[in-house]
Amino acid sequence: MPSILDGITDPSQLKALSLRELETLAQELRTRIIETCSANGGHVAPSLGVVELTIALHRVFDSPKDKIVWDVGHQAYAHKLLTGRKDRFGTLRTQGGISGFPKRVESPHDCFDVGHSSTSISAGVGFAVGRDLKKARNKVLAVIGDGAMTGGLAFEGLNHAGELNKDLVVILNDNEMSISENVGALSNLLSRTITSEYVHRAKKDLEAFLEGVPMFGRSVLKIAKRAEESLKTLFTPGMLFEAFGFEYIGPIDGHDIPKLLETLENVKRFDDAVLIHVLTRKGKGYPPAEANPSLFHGVGPFDIKTGKVHKGKGGAASYTGVFGQTIKRLAQEDDRVVAITAAMPDGTGLTPFAKEFPERFFDVGIAEQHAVTFAAGLAAEGFKPVVALYSSFLQRGFDQLCHDVCLQDLPVVFAIDRAGVVGSDGPTHHGVFDLSYLRAVPGLTIMAPKDENELQHMLVTALSLDGPAALRYPRGNGLGVPMDQILTPLAVGKGERLRDGKDGAILAVGTMVESARQAAAALAEEGIEVAVMNARFVKPLDTELILELARTGLLITVEDNVVQGGFGTAILELLEEHDMTGVRVIRLGYPDSFVEQGEQADLKAAYGLDAAGIARSVREACQGRRASA
Amino acid sequence: MPSILDGITDPSQLKALSLRELETLAQELRTRIIETCSANGGHVAPSLGVVELTIALHRVFDSPKDKIVWDVGHQAYAHKLLTGRKDRFGTLRTQGGISGFPKRVESPHDCFDVGHSSTSISAGVGFAVGRDLKKARNKVLAVIGDGAMTGGLAFEGLNHAGELNKDLVVILNDNEMSISENVGALSNLLSRTITSEYVHRAKKDLEAFLEGVPMFGRSVLKIAKRAEESLKTLFTPGMLFEAFGFEYIGPIDGHDIPKLLETLENVKRFDDAVLIHVLTRKGKGYPPAEANPSLFHGVGPFDIKTGKVHKGKGGAASYTGVFGQTIKRLAQEDDRVVAITAAMPDGTGLTPFAKEFPERFFDVGIAEQHAVTFAAGLAAEGFKPVVALYSSFLQRGFDQLCHDVCLQDLPVVFAIDRAGVVGSDGPTHHGVFDLSYLRAVPGLTIMAPKDENELQHMLVTALSLDGPAALRYPRGNGLGVPMDQILTPLAVGKGERLRDGKDGAILAVGTMVESARQAAAALAEEGIEVAVMNARFVKPLDTELILELARTGLLITVEDNVVQGGFGTAILELLEEHDMTGVRVIRLGYPDSFVEQGEQADLKAAYGLDAAGIARSVREACQGRRASA
Ligand SMILES: [Mg+2]
Ligand SMILES: [Mg+2]
Repeated sequence: MPSILDGITDPSQLKALSLRELETLAQELRTRIIETCSANGGHVAPSLGVVELTIALHRVFDSPKDKIVWDVGHQAYAHKLLTGRKDRFGTLRTQGGISGFPKRVESPHDCFDVGHSSTSISAGVGFAVGRDLKKARNKVLAVIGDGAMTGGLAFEGLNHAGELNKDLVVILNDNEMSISENVGALSNLLSRTITSEYVHRAKKDLEAFLEGVPMFGRSVLKIAKRAEESLKTLFTPGMLFEAFGFEYIGPIDGHDIPKLLETLENVKRFDDAVLIHVLTRKGKGYPPAEANPSLFHGVGPFDIKTGKVHKGKGGAASYTGVFGQTIKRLAQEDDRVVAITAAMPDGTGLTPFAKEFPERFFDVGIAEQHAVTFAAGLAAEGFKPVVALYSSFLQRGFDQLCHDVCLQDLPVVFAIDRAGVVGSDGPTHHGVFDLSYLRAVPGLTIMAPKDENELQHMLVTALSLDGPAALRYPRGNGLGVPMDQILTPLAVGKGERLRDGKDGAILAVGTMVESARQAAAALAEEGIEVAVMNARFVKPLDTELILELARTGLLITVEDNVVQGGFGTAILELLEEHDMTGVRVIRLGYPDSFVEQGEQADLKAAYGLDAAGIARSVREACQGRRASA
Repeated sequence: MPSILDGITDPSQLKALSLRELETLAQELRTRIIETCSANGGHVAPSLGVVELTIALHRVFDSPKDKIVWDVGHQAYAHKLLTGRKDRFGTLRTQGGISGFPKRVESPHDCFDVGHSSTSISAGVGFAVGRDLKKARNKVLAVIGDGAMTGGLAFEGLNHAGELNKDLVVILNDNEMSISENVGALSNLLSRTITSEYVHRAKKDLEAFLEGVPMFGRSVLKIAKRAEESLKTLFTPGMLFEAFGFEYIGPIDGHDIPKLLETLENVKRFDDAVLIHVLTRKGKGYPPAEANPSLFHGVGPFDIKTGKVHKGKGGAASYTGVFGQTIKRLAQEDDRVVAITAAMPDGTGLTPFAKEFPERFFDVGIAEQHAVTFAAGLAAEGFKPVVALYSSFLQRGFDQLCHDVCLQDLPVVFAIDRAGVVGSDGPTHHGVFDLSYLRAVPGLTIMAPKDENELQHMLVTALSLDGPAALRYPRGNGLGVPMDQILTPLAVGKGERLRDGKDGAILAVGTMVESARQAAAALAEEGIEVAVMNARFVKPLDTELILELARTGLLITVEDNVVQGGFGTAILELLEEHDMTGVRVIRLGYPDSFVEQGEQADLKAAYGLDAAGIARSVREACQGRRASA
């Protein structure tokens, strides 16, 4: 039987479908999403939650003329399937395949690229203002989750939008859950929806009563009218948004297609700033995802029938897991240690800590700026806060790291997970800039461990310092090395010499150390003897050891970061400061362009950052030297 | 007659003063602030606005046990005078003198360093959480302006604070004006205070009426009670803050000491999250500042009697002014050009543009993140947005610049004012990191003009590009050079050779070019012939010219930025990429530490970045080469 989805090449075709066909389409979209994600992994739960909403948006509005601006964008799978990408959907999140996020280069229906949170209202205000300046007529719809709404950028956008009062529709996709459990006063506010039915009845009672009293003076009537209005705002989540100048509609059931169509059709005729509060369920329609929406938020390949996630390759502990166990252990020994995350307790490995030390654990929601400044306040009060964030999200807290932490030399530890390439999430999520932007900030100690055992020691080191420290480590498993039981701080600014060699030296940082070691071993069999240094510290550098290795005349630096401004560049700066001219340096890392999506190993290989690639670069350099010698 | 202020060596002494003495003290503080600022310049209007509030805080609470966390911090002059710094107050904002902002190293009464906006609630939550973990007993008071409240970080802090419901007092210092006119829905909300008196009366009427009706059923009584409560929230600015879980008190007159004392004494007994809404007047008590609070927000030396600001030295146009005139002119020719600022229409020179193109001008308030993402939305809609921000505040929008603009290759122009050292505002405001953190981001063209004429051409160049561009220029006057009438885009990635020389080459960027030129001229008289290049582009670099100059064997790079990761480092990277070993490079710039406050010229001289300092570095390098030759 031909499916309805198979016939959809353009979202405008949805206008011709019956309600029954739309319901069937929803099921087909779910099936396709589950099938593809079971093979490729992906953001299953968010995308399943908005299937009906996506159908309703494309049915009522006219994309790409009307702009649907997705927030975060991991919920846009149904949108992708309905906008000409169903045939390529099997390549989702693979190298060369379609992105797991909206991307303008993929389709005119993706009007704004995204991956990070809380951008849609701001971008939507831009689209709405632009439209009005052009005197065009189209709708702008920003679809934002309740989790993303806690980000400061979303509020800045709301504040501006409310003032401008442009024709802008914000759709609050409220699943009472961001990536994990929702947090913040906003969440409490939204959850008051449960009482709205009661309030509705109470209001009717009041109206009836007031109408039945004949001797009301004009002013009291006015007051009663206001009281009625205010009842609505007091007892519904609309309060906040009406305070911001938005017309509030909802909450409505986000899986009820007729209700969604009716509401959107109504809103289509408005020309003010409107917020529609839609209640959805993460993972809707796929029981394993409904039962465990946090696991199925972003998940690897899984078995459709059982919902069991396929095991990864290695059995080695993940860096994330080792971080989580180590901070828990260190917190047992020092009650000044507190941990902060921004909506990523699982992703950063802090859940065990949170269970053991609930009063010393803080999930501030999607609010990286606050996470950092809050930590600075705790540090000023004498604590040792560890802020665990993903590398690319720490970019949100850059000013706070610089202005609130480093300028005051406060002992805040940044545990930077997902540093380097992260894989299928692609360019919005790769953490390949941190070494560059962190290195610019005075007073920050920057480390990267060569393996999961060293990660333990580096966390101890970071916590032993009187000033700020950053510790960056990748997504994925460690090397399976033995784990020391006794943890001791490393000597700050001291690297580790792993191998000697007269022909040159590889200076490697973090995960690149093991590849460098393998490269050097392979080269030795060819008669090329290169030293290998595990940098450990990107700042301060081990001047003594690096200058000694520089006497070989050839340094190859390797890092899981862009080459501009990173570790290799720090080596160039060190040589310049010590007037070491005549040393050939080759900096390996990601180039000065955004790195696409793909498996971590494949990306490293593509950019010459695996053992073979490093060996190749060293070999060429050595051959060049011999030829010119 | 000995003044009261002269006798205050510790704020605890305020507890012994009579109300009359407190009033006198307020006058004395005002006089001292006006006197000092008339000589040194400073944030006159903000500090005059909170004199009574500062007195009341120190009278009721016990600093430093109780933590007074100032937001932005430019209003803390009275606080400084009352906390042991009155004798050094004459050194305010001078090199080696006391800071214009709170600084922990200056006094235990400054519990948190600040300079940027919207940090106080987040830091305050940190202090409150830390206190409770320690089971200590003290109050935490975050004093935040209505302008700062629009920053996303403030909302993230409010959201977390409201959820935790810690003993935390937020004092909203509402002067209905941030740095310039206030913006945003929040501002509209706050200004509803005007109606609160009416509402109060209306509420009384309703209560009286309801009490007079005997036959009310229980449920209707309940509803009436709620209606009464909701009236309060609907018609006062408390709505928003109560939505966030704060108890709201106010608005109260921030210049009425008895009222302030009464309110703070009451609040002292609470242990929930409370927000006190205080109405103040910027510049209060000094008529010229009251009349022109925007001018007196942050002002140079002025005549006390007339309030006339002393003229600066040169008559040359400021970079800011030239930017403002040029963008206005370019907007006349291209209606896609729109301008965005974050609460700095005067400071960024956009006021003339705003007057001529009000519908194409957007002051988004203190909301740098939104400014950037809003611009990205406009660019995606086909516009050419120019985002004018101060360099150090752009740090707030770093993720948005990277993720929302550069990743999509959108043609947003960043007009980065106050790049380099800014002077008396000191380390929180120096814009000395931008070249480093911007250089890491792929696809961004980065320019710096050697003079105000080149600034014009660079703005045209930036607007002619299909992708993002940044243009950074300093605070202060240009060189007084002739201004071209016809503006043409520069060749991207091409520098300008200003002088030839066989002994080496100075590669200079931005304001450093003129100093480099002077240095080269002085050196020529000593027989040292160095070339001078105006880099123009920090990214992409002029590879051809730089490699040619590198053949002299000596490159001296000069930039008004930190040395780590900046322009000089880009030169090292270029040489590495082209295997140009053996070239000696000397990178001049600010060191890897935060630069203190001081006059721009003095700071440059202190760090060897004036003509004499550059000449000295070149001379030493050349002498070293001759000695070793
Ligand atoms: Mg959610
Ligand atoms: Mg204000």
